[in-house]
Amino acid sequence: MSLYKAPLGDIRFVLFDLLGAAEEYARLGHADATRDVLDAVLDEAARFTETVLAPLNETGDRIGCTFDKATGAVTTPSGFREAYAQFVEGGWTGLVSPVEFGGQGLPYSAGVPLKEMIDAANLAWGNFPLLSHGATDALLHHGEDWQREVFLKPLVDGRWTGTMCLTEPHCGTDLGLLKTKAVPNDDGTYSITGTKIFITAGEHDMTDNIVHLVLAKLPDAPAGSKGISLFIVPKFKVARDGTLGEANAVRCGSIEHKMGIHGSATCVLNFDGAQGYLIGQPNKGLMAMFTMMNTARLGVGVQGLGLSDRAWQNALRYSRERLQSRALSGAKFPDKPADPIIVQPDVRRMLLTCKALVEGGRALSYFAGLQVDIAERAPTEEERQQADALVGFLTPIVKACLTEWGVECTYHALQCFGGHGYIAEHGMEQLARDARITTLYEGTTGIQALDLLGRKVMQLQGAGLKQFLGLITRFCDACTAGTQPGSEAAAEFIGPLREKVAQWQQMTLQIGQRAATNPEEIGAASYDYLMYSGYVALAYCWARSAAAAQASTQTEAFRQAKLETARFYFARILPRTLTHAAAISSAAVTLTALDEAAFDA
Amino acid sequence: MSLYKAPLGDIRFVLFDLLGAAEEYARLGHADATRDVLDAVLDEAARFTETVLAPLNETGDRIGCTFDKATGAVTTPSGFREAYAQFVEGGWTGLVSPVEFGGQGLPYSAGVPLKEMIDAANLAWGNFPLLSHGATDALLHHGEDWQREVFLKPLVDGRWTGTMCLTEPHCGTDLGLLKTKAVPNDDGTYSITGTKIFITAGEHDMTDNIVHLVLAKLPDAPAGSKGISLFIVPKFKVARDGTLGEANAVRCGSIEHKMGIHGSATCVLNFDGAQGYLIGQPNKGLMAMFTMMNTARLGVGVQGLGLSDRAWQNALRYSRERLQSRALSGAKFPDKPADPIIVQPDVRRMLLTCKALVEGGRALSYFAGLQVDIAERAPTEEERQQADALVGFLTPIVKACLTEWGVECTYHALQCFGGHGYIAEHGMEQLARDARITTLYEGTTGIQALDLLGRKVMQLQGAGLKQFLGLITRFCDACTAGTQPGSEAAAEFIGPLREKVAQWQQMTLQIGQRAATNPEEIGAASYDYLMYSGYVALAYCWARSAAAAQASTQTEAFRQAKLETARFYFARILPRTLTHAAAISSAAVTLTALDEAAFDA
Repeated sequence: MSLYKAPLGDIRFVLFDLLGAAEEYARLGHADATRDVLDAVLDEAARFTETVLAPLNETGDRIGCTFDKATGAVTTPSGFREAYAQFVEGGWTGLVSPVEFGGQGLPYSAGVPLKEMIDAANLAWGNFPLLSHGATDALLHHGEDWQREVFLKPLVDGRWTGTMCLTEPHCGTDLGLLKTKAVPNDDGTYSITGTKIFITAGEHDMTDNIVHLVLAKLPDAPAGSKGISLFIVPKFKVARDGTLGEANAVRCGSIEHKMGIHGSATCVLNFDGAQGYLIGQPNKGLMAMFTMMNTARLGVGVQGLGLSDRAWQNALRYSRERLQSRALSGAKFPDKPADPIIVQPDVRRMLLTCKALVEGGRALSYFAGLQVDIAERAPTEEERQQADALVGFLTPIVKACLTEWGVECTYHALQCFGGHGYIAEHGMEQLARDARITTLYEGTTGIQALDLLGRKVMQLQGAGLKQFLGLITRFCDACTAGTQPGSEAAAEFIGPLREKVAQWQQMTLQIGQRAATNPEEIGAASYDYLMYSGYVALAYCWARSAAAAQASTQTEAFRQAKLETARFYFARILPRTLTHAAAISSAAVTLTALDEAAFDA
Repeated sequence: MSLYKAPLGDIRFVLFDLLGAAEEYARLGHADATRDVLDAVLDEAARFTETVLAPLNETGDRIGCTFDKATGAVTTPSGFREAYAQFVEGGWTGLVSPVEFGGQGLPYSAGVPLKEMIDAANLAWGNFPLLSHGATDALLHHGEDWQREVFLKPLVDGRWTGTMCLTEPHCGTDLGLLKTKAVPNDDGTYSITGTKIFITAGEHDMTDNIVHLVLAKLPDAPAGSKGISLFIVPKFKVARDGTLGEANAVRCGSIEHKMGIHGSATCVLNFDGAQGYLIGQPNKGLMAMFTMMNTARLGVGVQGLGLSDRAWQNALRYSRERLQSRALSGAKFPDKPADPIIVQPDVRRMLLTCKALVEGGRALSYFAGLQVDIAERAPTEEERQQADALVGFLTPIVKACLTEWGVECTYHALQCFGGHGYIAEHGMEQLARDARITTLYEGTTGIQALDLLGRKVMQLQGAGLKQFLGLITRFCDACTAGTQPGSEAAAEFIGPLREKVAQWQQMTLQIGQRAATNPEEIGAASYDYLMYSGYVALAYCWARSAAAAQASTQTEAFRQAKLETARFYFARILPRTLTHAAAISSAAVTLTALDEAAFDA
């Protein structure tokens, strides 16, 4: 079994030394989110995830969820239900929800480390409470008062969980094609009929009720994505006073057999005239759903981070323990039968790649999380708008890059184990299988790439990109001027960073020019543009981390580790941008020239 | 379930148009290996693998091998045993074995397409006959006459299978650490005692007997890898006349629960004073084992190829069928509810990456296979030596790169399916799980990298590298001179190819110079050097393929597909060498600077 120890040291470094979160929260009016409170939350989250969730990870994979065809019931793996009860008991479900609905009102970004720890400890389990956040957000922003009163409070206090019912057998990415129908009833409710698939936590045994948020079409709806509405469909009907009524006409038809996250129930849900309530405006459901999707996407990025971190922790431990061969420059531990494999430069290459992507990814995702709070609470409208543009811009990068890196890090970590990594008992292969879902759900990497380049950069005239490049440039300027604390540690990275900023701008212009005559240029450049963006964003995070560590009261070893890992990143990972830039410059023709029929000529 | 259709068109193109195998075989004295014979073998291999093996792939994964603790017996998944009987019946086991031992005597490289098809159809099943080849080679080259008579013939005709027993719980890469003991008996036999793990096909129900080739130490053996001997240890004792005797003291202790290849039995074997026969010289066992390992490594490379091919076939089919969204430049199929996703440039990026790596990898591995035949049969000693150097040089490249690309192609192919790729029923996730073993067994990618750069390039003064660069340069010269058939189609690739040849030479020199003062430079550069080599080797294959297609009688669509895929490869895949070259130039310090204890400071 793989072990898990919450990386509190680096989490605190990122939150407090790098991002100055405690001061930011004070500035944003989060008076309760003091350093003491946050420290206590982190300690307790570490304890809960390490001791309650992590031990259930392997059994959850081995046992999985089971489905009873006769009753439509889903039973979660042994221990999952009890762990959820403890989670509710501890008040975790409402950590970042508004106080008026029973939450603890902490900033969004203060919940990100909790999410990282949950996902590292037990990704499959984490999917049950996860989806409640999306439902909570949708209700907060688009629900009527009575809907909030009836549905939001039990979601916040964890008595119920939520789902997002989007996908149907014939449509995932292209929701305009969906067939689920909503017919209005005389009493203001709607009758929902259709089949939804891939519904995470669509059915389970953890709570009394489940609140489904369902996309469906009204009878007179316009065709395509402009004719989609969002409905609340509870598993058990609920009276306006909140008491539970009879079972609604929604039933789990089966659960999927998947590559991984076996402990997470992925359900087919059949709605057969189920009673639902319209949430938000008719035909504006996609907009409301996007509210849920944005934070869900950041959350999936953090899943990639959590899995990467757990994988690399175990690879590091194994690489220190496993004795095999000698260093090429001579035995490092002549008293042992062989040297630990961590003396091998190629093993270090894999470990350092993980370390650079994990710690860099942590900085990037927590930074994006902090922008969510700034977008919500900053004193000026201008600052809120800027932060909002940044969140929109960073969301596809965090989602796609951190999950791609999750696949990569679990790959390297398994590889460090050699053949033993392929054997179930070490737990490394589970991490690799679990990680594989993260580049698929909540929009594949390709969809994130189109969202970034097509929508966030091209359609929105690069508002978020300009914000982000401005931040990098101001950081570089401050380092050059020596006004950035710890700037001496970042000095060597400023030149390369400025070069990438210039190249990024130029590339964006070139794609825009090409796209003016050929719209396919957007799709053709999108993936490489996305990854390029992710690597430059991480370079910024690493340069800042080197500076922040230098300026901090961290140990000398910690500061040195940040500096050397930053050097490794700039020397060996950032050059991946060369490949992506070359691919982008080759333009769409290299992808579109081959006739579709000739692919297997 | 994923489908499989043997890619006979491209297999024939590579064998006959690109490599001129029929003419080569005639030149090497393989009079029986005519085009007609080879065509018949390919057709029949396609039929067998498509209709017998491929349908068992999914059930093999789902059922897996089962182990009976009471008897130590392993039962293979339903249908596996019967398929093996058909395989033996068809004479496939001895396809490339010498006629004098009952084989059909075809050239080694004529067996590579069969292996590709087997691995694509059913990798787990393919591991049962696979290991017999290693045992066959070891017996052919190092066995005594009676050993060949008694053990070789049943291996060739498939009545028995073979194993390679190297790994022990505490040692895999570093065989010098092994503990299994061989004590000489008065009758010339040896008593073998110890535990071996990860023994593929170590126990099963397909044949009457299993011939284990076991590494062990004699009582007076020198320490380390110079004190290892190789022994034949049959599951059932065998009299000199070949009749089976009583069970030997070797027993399967358990089978591993693995990420994939569930249908392949990965055994713990306990030798408890089992009767064995020394093969080859005492303490020279590692050398004999390397004979087995080299062809096994080429074989594992072909496993990566087979899985990649099957994965991409299915991704192509799905991308043509799945209707979702519209092309950014406007609907391509306005009569359908949405366009097939193959119109999306980013989907084409994934498909073309697979196509380029699959077809390029096929050319590279078949080319390496042909060198095995040339090394064995060429008319002059000089040519045989040159080919032998090439085989040694190309083996780690084929093994490591084709398996890394196997992981990559199964990744892209699954990604084309979106969330459906993660569901077992589509079969794509099995291909990804199965592929994951190939970068681990028979030496991890890191071990191949050290073999290439440390041994094949540095220790052997680059004999194989010089051969290979000479081949590329001669091809470029012939294209420039217009004497290469089809050279006009390759013209645009010659400049980039020459540049890479020059950079490859220069990089090799630089690493050598740095390694003179710091041996860690070898390990630090090895992985990136390996991948760099693979990408340039593939560029050579693609330039040759474009030319060979142009000069062939293939259809215009086929020739166009080769040319456009070559263009795609040079524009979007070959630039990966930029990243690898940058990593190499950053030298060892970027990997060794961080103190081991500070990795998690």
